[in-house]
Amino acid sequence: MRIALLGGTGDIGEGLALRWAYDSDHEVVIGSRDPEKARGKAEEYETELDSRGREVKVTGFANEMAADRADVVVLAVPAYHLTDTISAVADKLDDAILVSPAVGMKKDDDGMHYNPPPHGSVAAMAAEVAPDDVPVVGAFHNLAAGRLANLDADIDWDTPVFGDDDDAKDIVMRLAADIQGLRPLDVGGLANAGEVEAVTPLLINLAANNDDMHDLGVKFW
Amino acid sequence: MRIALLGGTGDIGEGLALRWAYDSDHEVVIGSRDPEKARGKAEEYETELDSRGREVKVTGFANEMAADRADVVVLAVPAYHLTDTISAVADKLDDAILVSPAVGMKKDDDGMHYNPPPHGSVAAMAAEVAPDDVPVVGAFHNLAAGRLANLDADIDWDTPVFGDDDDAKDIVMRLAADIQGLRPLDVGGLANAGEVEAVTPLLINLAANNDDMHDLGVKFW
Repeated sequence: MRIALLGGTGDIGEGLALRWAYDSDHEVVIGSRDPEKARGKAEEYETELDSRGREVKVTGFANEMAADRADVVVLAVPAYHLTDTISAVADKLDDAILVSPAVGMKKDDDGMHYNPPPHGSVAAMAAEVAPDDVPVVGAFHNLAAGRLANLDADIDWDTPVFGDDDDAKDIVMRLAADIQGLRPLDVGGLANAGEVEAVTPLLINLAANNDDMHDLGVKFW
Repeated sequence: MRIALLGGTGDIGEGLALRWAYDSDHEVVIGSRDPEKARGKAEEYETELDSRGREVKVTGFANEMAADRADVVVLAVPAYHLTDTISAVADKLDDAILVSPAVGMKKDDDGMHYNPPPHGSVAAMAAEVAPDDVPVVGAFHNLAAGRLANLDADIDWDTPVFGDDDDAKDIVMRLAADIQGLRPLDVGGLANAGEVEAVTPLLINLAANNDDMHDLGVKFW
C-alpha cells in the first residue's frame, strides 16, 4: 500500500513513518505544507532506516502531491490544522481512506483536557469536511510519539480503531497490525470517537503526575 | 481502616468488598438503602470468603449506618443516585473521605458514550454535594465488575486516582494498592476526572466490538 503521512514531519508522523518503513513493505510518503521540509525529513528517515540495515525509499512532497495516488492518507497534523489540510488535498483523494489520529486538547493549571470541536470529536469534524465518498477512520490516537519514533524502543500498545465504513476500517486495522507491537482494536463507528480521543490527555496527565511514567500508551485486557 | 461501600450490594461494590476482605485486613462494611439487602449480601460475601479459607467479618447496614464511623466511604452507586446517597449520609461523614467510582454514561445504537453531568464530571458533582470539609477522591472507575468480583480471576489493572486533597488521595491510593493486581496511578486533581471517567464507556465499546474481549480493564505503560 501507498501510505501518505500528511504532517509526516511532526512527532506522531515521524513515528508512524519509521515504523511502517521498518516493519512492513508499505510505501511511505511524507507530506508537509513545505515540500522542502518534507524532502529533508524523508531523507532523514531514510538515513535512520539505512543505519539499521533497512534500505527503503521514503519520499517527501507538498501535502497535495503526497496525497495524490495514496491508498491511505493519514492526517498526522494538529487538530486545528485538520480541516485546512483536508480541504487542501480533497481533490486528490480519489479512492483513498482518510485516517484521523488527531485529538483536540486544552491545557490549564490542572493538566490536559479533552476539548472536542462542536462536531463531538475531531474525527467527526474530519468526516464533515472530507468529500462524501472518502471514508474517515480514526486510529493511532493513544501512542507516545517519542517512543514510537525510537526504533530501539519496543512497544506493546493497543490502538482503538473506529469508522462507519467497515471495509476502510479493516484496511486501517491491518495497516496498524503491520507495526510490530501495535494491536488494533475495533471500537465501532465514528460516534464512538470521543472516548478514544479523550485517552490522550489522560496519558499526558498520568505522565505528569507519576515520577516513573513517561511516553505512555495503553493496553486493554 | 474501616471502609464503607455504599451500594455495596451492586456489581462494583461486590468486587471491591470481596477483594479488600480477601487481600487486606481492612474492615469492610456494606451499605444499601435496604438494610436487609445489605445484611444478606454481607453474609453472602462472608460465605464466599470462608469457602476460600478467609474467615472475616463483613457487616451490612442501611447506608447511613454503614457510613457512620467509616474512614473511607465508597459511593458504589449509579451516577444518578450519587447526590441522593451523599445527602443521606452527609451528617455521618465526620473525618471520612468520599470515594467516587461512578461514571455517567448513555447508550445509543452506536455504543456507550460518556455523559458527564453539567458539573463536568461525576466526581465534580459529588464534590459539590459533599459537605465542605469532606474530601472527594475519584478511583476505581475502569474496573470490570464481573472479573473484580471473581476471586478466581487474576487482575492486573491500573486505576487512575484523582482529588484536590493530597492526603486523602494518598490514603485512597494506598487502599487501592492493597488489592492484589491493582496499581493506583496519580492523575492529579478533580479537574482531571472527565478523561478517567470516559474510559469506562470505551472499555464497554471495545468489549462489544471484539469477539475475544470482555470484562476489560486498562494498563498504562
